[in-house]
Amino acid sequence: MAQEGEPALHPDVAPIAWLLGSWRGEGAGSFPTIQSFRYAEELRFWHVGKPFLAFAQRTWALEDGRPLHAESGYWRVQPGGLVELVLAEPSGLASIYEGSATADGVELVTATIVRARTAKEVTRVERSYRRSGDGMLAFTMAMAAVGQPLTHHLAAELRRTAPAG
Amino acid sequence: MAQEGEPALHPDVAPIAWLLGSWRGEGAGSFPTIQSFRYAEELRFWHVGKPFLAFAQRTWALEDGRPLHAESGYWRVQPGGLVELVLAEPSGLASIYEGSATADGVELVTATIVRARTAKEVTRVERSYRRSGDGMLAFTMAMAAVGQPLTHHLAAELRRTAPAG
Repeated sequence: MAQEGEPALHPDVAPIAWLLGSWRGEGAGSFPTIQSFRYAEELRFWHVGKPFLAFAQRTWALEDGRPLHAESGYWRVQPGGLVELVLAEPSGLASIYEGSATADGVELVTATIVRARTAKEVTRVERSYRRSGDGMLAFTMAMAAVGQPLTHHLAAELRRTAPAG
Repeated sequence: MAQEGEPALHPDVAPIAWLLGSWRGEGAGSFPTIQSFRYAEELRFWHVGKPFLAFAQRTWALEDGRPLHAESGYWRVQPGGLVELVLAEPSGLASIYEGSATADGVELVTATIVRARTAKEVTRVERSYRRSGDGMLAFTMAMAAVGQPLTHHLAAELRRTAPAG
């Protein structure tokens, strides 16, 4: 992004600036309708000087590296501290999450989920991104989907692999 | 994305495979509520062997390179030819578009738009991505937003800068 130089971080995003950079790790997934599985994950957060962080995530299978999930979007931070995540997923879901940042991390819940007509139904998602020790991030996600009530789905531990900024 | 090797293109995305790669160019924007402007733009499309293309776009000011718009998401292609675009924008919008691919390009219209509570209202968007001559892409976009009826908003001409795949 050479055109952009190195803009200063927008002060509104300071509460979530610890997310900036790249993270890698492994996780485990389960849900009543699927077989439990383990996966590798990469998260990337960057900024362009505006009051949001850009975000891209992907996961792949531990055994053969085949791509599993991906998602991308933007984390907006409002002056009062409201965090809004705008998220797109290739499974056909687009979501607006709302939440807040604390010293420990960010907690987010879907305010709205819409889906492509060919996508599976997901009615609620809760996400937690927590700072866990030195350079570690703990991610958990629960969802209500395909007729199942809100149920734990994913947990991953990631380590920072590239510096913020 | 070294983990992923070089997967074969999923056959369902063949109708939009001409988008793969990177594109750069310039465009012009206008809308009844804003001053007209010109901008530089980059589009990137890539795939991981699944029936969708991943997509990231950004624009910047011609005069000083400051970032303007950005968006990211996924172009899903259904076996019958339905194209679904799942899109996230840092302006606080998440959308599902539907459309179809022809030999000339892809035409898309919003099926659903949702927005963060702090975002401006956009009620309908129509997008066209057309192959225009050798290695060129013509983009146009019209939208209904902030009380204005469907009105032309953006037109850009982009040239392929990196090969497909």
